[in-house]
Amino acid sequence: MRVYNFSPGPSMLPLPVLERAAREMCDYNGTGMSVMEMSHRGKPFMQIMENTQNLLRELMNIPEDYEVLFVQGGASMQFAMIPLNLMTTGAAAYIDSGNFAHNALVEAQRYGRVDVLASSKADTYAYIPDYDVNDIADDASYLYITTNNTIFGTRYIELPKPKNGIPLVADMSSNILSQPYDVRDFGLIYAGVQKNMGPAGMAVVIVRKDLIGKAGANVPKMLNFQTYADNNSMFNTPPAYTIYMTGLVLEWLKEQGGVEGIYQKNVEKAQILYDFLDQSEKFRPLAKKEHRSLMNVTFVSPDAETDARFVAEAAKAGLQTLKGHRIAGGMRASIYNAMPKEGVEALVNFMADFEKTI
Amino acid sequence: MRVYNFSPGPSMLPLPVLERAAREMCDYNGTGMSVMEMSHRGKPFMQIMENTQNLLRELMNIPEDYEVLFVQGGASMQFAMIPLNLMTTGAAAYIDSGNFAHNALVEAQRYGRVDVLASSKADTYAYIPDYDVNDIADDASYLYITTNNTIFGTRYIELPKPKNGIPLVADMSSNILSQPYDVRDFGLIYAGVQKNMGPAGMAVVIVRKDLIGKAGANVPKMLNFQTYADNNSMFNTPPAYTIYMTGLVLEWLKEQGGVEGIYQKNVEKAQILYDFLDQSEKFRPLAKKEHRSLMNVTFVSPDAETDARFVAEAAKAGLQTLKGHRIAGGMRASIYNAMPKEGVEALVNFMADFEKTI
Repeated sequence: MRVYNFSPGPSMLPLPVLERAAREMCDYNGTGMSVMEMSHRGKPFMQIMENTQNLLRELMNIPEDYEVLFVQGGASMQFAMIPLNLMTTGAAAYIDSGNFAHNALVEAQRYGRVDVLASSKADTYAYIPDYDVNDIADDASYLYITTNNTIFGTRYIELPKPKNGIPLVADMSSNILSQPYDVRDFGLIYAGVQKNMGPAGMAVVIVRKDLIGKAGANVPKMLNFQTYADNNSMFNTPPAYTIYMTGLVLEWLKEQGGVEGIYQKNVEKAQILYDFLDQSEKFRPLAKKEHRSLMNVTFVSPDAETDARFVAEAAKAGLQTLKGHRIAGGMRASIYNAMPKEGVEALVNFMADFEKTI
Repeated sequence: MRVYNFSPGPSMLPLPVLERAAREMCDYNGTGMSVMEMSHRGKPFMQIMENTQNLLRELMNIPEDYEVLFVQGGASMQFAMIPLNLMTTGAAAYIDSGNFAHNALVEAQRYGRVDVLASSKADTYAYIPDYDVNDIADDASYLYITTNNTIFGTRYIELPKPKNGIPLVADMSSNILSQPYDVRDFGLIYAGVQKNMGPAGMAVVIVRKDLIGKAGANVPKMLNFQTYADNNSMFNTPPAYTIYMTGLVLEWLKEQGGVEGIYQKNVEKAQILYDFLDQSEKFRPLAKKEHRSLMNVTFVSPDAETDARFVAEAAKAGLQTLKGHRIAGGMRASIYNAMPKEGVEALVNFMADFEKTI
């Protein structure tokens, strides 16, 4: 009996993907072994690797002058790798739009001057802060943003456009492949795969080729993007099974009509939930209307006890992991690509019934 | 149809482990979700985490004053993390007994003075080089060794015993849990899990508590052992499925009689293969007899063309991935814990038949 799992990540995966992984577990494609057991230098895995990379290139329309890298350590490792590789001037600008954006800029301060262009921290990150790209220092190596703020349920509707060719760097961990983006608007995009792409244990880094190869001599080899670019992300043993699972998820996404197709479904799913919240007299959405995320919907009931009761009773009804992050409080429904519309409808129906008991 | 897979890593996993993973893929233990989909902060995964850690502590008899950490990036990341965390004096001693030992010392040179205590590089690493622990400099922060050399098929039979409390640091990637070790002989043990413990994508680090917490301020947060120790290896999302699979392998290992039990089987398996090689008039073992590995058995036929024919014909007979590493040449049979005795017997039988065709 599968449940609807509203976890912010790791999160739901498409059931057909899991079923296929189970079928192929002991014998992948007639090789007589599991993908977990294969040499990463052998043909079967090399094909899996190529397939995963090609699907990502196709689905995101990634230009040839961008590398696609697979790196272990998740987004938190990127908080260090980005300044270590890209902060060639010793300075960078950051927009502080959420907890992960904040952690990223704190980590970057180890390596150079961090200019906080704007922050909504004082308002519990309930919105994307106003910023003026003219305030970016001339010597900034890049402007860093978080396109979707998982904890607070906000996202950029329009992207900042830095002047003078300063590259835009984006943490897209919680909304990659959920809506169309033009990769050319970015110098670098990265995402931990555990929300919209696969199981935890890897980040995808999409980076313009001219931005790499400039890391200092004391940067660890495994933290240098050049190491990954030079070795097709296989300088050492890659997280092979995670790459395989990511490939299966990307195949599924292609069947859903690709990013454009899933985007329509995501808009529809989010609308169902926001429409309910906007008319509800007991539940209240937390994110500012203009910056609402399509992936993470945050809301509260009238008080903390009712929040707790809601989360507990929803779980019993098969609607799981709805508790909000401790920093934001209340509830959060994460409705990534793999959450079916039926899950969102079941949640709204449950909320409508629960509302009568408040 | 499963094959016997002699891959050096990723490598064979116990079939019952894979079968269980397949069964639990879509619904773990009645949770209604895959382990891949679970919040790492929720109870079901926390129990998986605790179970994996406890099993490792039990199987290796790890004392309480050692941390058990799960770190992404594999052994190559440890090549940097070890000097960044432990080289507090600005110097360390390394024994250059193989390719990975060499890569480790090259990486360490970014961070301080590396004294090469001994090297067998000039002899294609066919043995563990002679060393004298009295040659270790007084200011060395640690002595670094690789207990088993995957590419060349050698291992330390006796461990170096550095004086003056200088800690021994060991890369045990290719023989952890294959034979009994006393953790107290080491300051730090680490191993990429993809040979004897699980699928690729994680290293286990077992480190004496007093050795950590001394990294410099400019060390990336994700490269500081203290970050992992302070957060039960969950500062950020851990490689959750890899931890789960590792736990399943450790449960299986416990059923095999633990490390002592599997060691007896490993000795028996290696003996079958070395006995055959020692009496063969056509095949010749590559590693020096006194330093033979129990995990990786390297050998050659009379010439390179016959080597290639052997590898190709063996593969057709279901004995796969026997090609040696390009640095060592010839053949390599990796016979980790999960390789059944039947696989080694099948290989020896095939070699006996093949020998007649040379």
